[in-house]
Amino acid sequence: MANLSQKAFGWAATDTSGVLSPFHFSRRENGADDVTIKILYCGICHSDLHTAKNEWGFTKYPVVPGHEIVGLVTKTGSNVESFKVGDRVGVGVLVGSCRTCDICQQDLENYCRKMIFTYNSTDKDGTRTYGGYSDIIVVDQHFVLRFPDNLPSDAGAPLLCAGITVYSPMKYYGMTEPGKHLGVAGLGGLGHVAVKFGKAFGLKVTVISTSPKKEAEAINKLGADAFLVSSDPVQLKAAMGTMDFIIDTIAAVHPLAPLLDLLKMNGKLVTVGLPDKPLELPIFPLVLGRKLVGGSDIGGMKETQEMLDFCGKHGITADIELIRMDYINTALERVSKSDVRYRFVIDVGNSLASL
Amino acid sequence: MANLSQKAFGWAATDTSGVLSPFHFSRRENGADDVTIKILYCGICHSDLHTAKNEWGFTKYPVVPGHEIVGLVTKTGSNVESFKVGDRVGVGVLVGSCRTCDICQQDLENYCRKMIFTYNSTDKDGTRTYGGYSDIIVVDQHFVLRFPDNLPSDAGAPLLCAGITVYSPMKYYGMTEPGKHLGVAGLGGLGHVAVKFGKAFGLKVTVISTSPKKEAEAINKLGADAFLVSSDPVQLKAAMGTMDFIIDTIAAVHPLAPLLDLLKMNGKLVTVGLPDKPLELPIFPLVLGRKLVGGSDIGGMKETQEMLDFCGKHGITADIELIRMDYINTALERVSKSDVRYRFVIDVGNSLASL
Repeated sequence: MANLSQKAFGWAATDTSGVLSPFHFSRRENGADDVTIKILYCGICHSDLHTAKNEWGFTKYPVVPGHEIVGLVTKTGSNVESFKVGDRVGVGVLVGSCRTCDICQQDLENYCRKMIFTYNSTDKDGTRTYGGYSDIIVVDQHFVLRFPDNLPSDAGAPLLCAGITVYSPMKYYGMTEPGKHLGVAGLGGLGHVAVKFGKAFGLKVTVISTSPKKEAEAINKLGADAFLVSSDPVQLKAAMGTMDFIIDTIAAVHPLAPLLDLLKMNGKLVTVGLPDKPLELPIFPLVLGRKLVGGSDIGGMKETQEMLDFCGKHGITADIELIRMDYINTALERVSKSDVRYRFVIDVGNSLASL
Repeated sequence: MANLSQKAFGWAATDTSGVLSPFHFSRRENGADDVTIKILYCGICHSDLHTAKNEWGFTKYPVVPGHEIVGLVTKTGSNVESFKVGDRVGVGVLVGSCRTCDICQQDLENYCRKMIFTYNSTDKDGTRTYGGYSDIIVVDQHFVLRFPDNLPSDAGAPLLCAGITVYSPMKYYGMTEPGKHLGVAGLGGLGHVAVKFGKAFGLKVTVISTSPKKEAEAINKLGADAFLVSSDPVQLKAAMGTMDFIIDTIAAVHPLAPLLDLLKMNGKLVTVGLPDKPLELPIFPLVLGRKLVGGSDIGGMKETQEMLDFCGKHGITADIELIRMDYINTALERVSKSDVRYRFVIDVGNSLASL
């Protein structure tokens, strides 16, 4: 049985209103393979909102969201050699997997059938997992990431979910060849990081968005090469057949046909959003242009570390709005309206403890 | 202007009834790069029926269908070195492309924007192209294929469209690794050849079909390893997550979700049919299993030659029902009901001339 000897404190949603409030709970004693982490920062992902409100239908309350966690190691187990007390580390969407299946053996723990999410999951010891909107977390060392020295803890935190969610498909689907043309559909938490990765890989990057008002910022601040207003048929027509890849970060139900038309022959449209209803897939463009529509879900631990190291090397961080813990309910409401450029990060270390 | 000096005779559809009747016409004189071919056999592709009835909306009557052509060379132009009079050759879906664009330079003439179809297209000289339901055809040497000695002319003819249509995506999407598990959805002209390619590549092949009565033949005659009745939820459930690839030859609108469920993680569903309405694409299986849905359309000339040589080496042919030219209208009606195992081939050489 789990020895829940470490006192913890965070904010939890307790019903489908999704409203969070202070919550005292316990975490397990630090085991031989565990690392206990004092949480400094935690990003706010749209999944946090979906889960707080039970919009996907599998929330068990109370739920403490948060899976873009940066903190400092405070304890290490006897088997832990890679981390020591005081190290700056990250924890993302996963805190466990079976470690033995074919998929885990390929460093793709994120697709393991026994994957354990950082929050709203059942842990190996039968307890519930609670996320990063809290003061401490205890995680098996395999699921702890080294945080590169030159990455800021606050603006680096969203890389642990938003970052790897776009980095992994860019690598898997071969979107890294310099000079190729990448479309980024949707300019939110995921999309704005995809633009930065695209530029770091040497791609031409065009943002595809419904909001003309985002154009100046996309180009001047994020470094995109071009901006396409997806509701403008003239702009769409002019850009037809010009893109090698599109990374589609749009979580709402949306038409795929205009995006497929933007692709060249052999073009790839990769979706990382999770619309809750099927999309309409026209078959003619797939067949006549040998195009494909693929998906991807976060990334494995090895690749997540590679992504963090890549971000350290290239100075890639998220553009964030730093908030205090007690702003969380307002922040979640703003997330639901996409009213953030481009990611909220909670200053857990400085604002949670003071309650 | 074109010098239409070669008299030709075939069967043409003249209106949307799609009924074919004898038709006298002319073909161009054999040019310096041309090969004139006496047609021996021509397969019947479902596209022939779509075009005869103008079901895709771009038929210009009269139309002489047929793009699975095997015959003997009767004339060669002064620039032609690869073919000589008496050679057995094939002509498939294409008789022209621009030859200069990026796509043509990659030997993908089948995706060239200026591609010229074997029938119902405008040729370079402004004349209409007429297909293989006729006694002779004149084709630029680049679009003429060597027919391997050990391939029979009749049962080999369908390889020129049905064969390359499934061979090309199997190569492009990497479905050739021995021991992997291929699902073939739909067991018609395309599907039954896909089964044979799958076995030649060393794959485990499961046929996915709505018709339980096809099971014995699929396994005993075509060599499939297993048969799955797609309307049986128990069979579908038992096979979930077991396939590496599915080649989807179903031309009608059909649900993709059950096929995606059959795929393993990283699985690929490739459609070569052309449903005239969009299909419903559920996004969760794509994202959570990193699966993809792709398309493919016939193949380039180099790859079509490679495919024919592969078939010669492995003894792969279509299973055919050989018919006389004057059976064509009955045959097309039977094609519309999928009442053929698995391809009609017209004995043009022995039955057209006798009219």
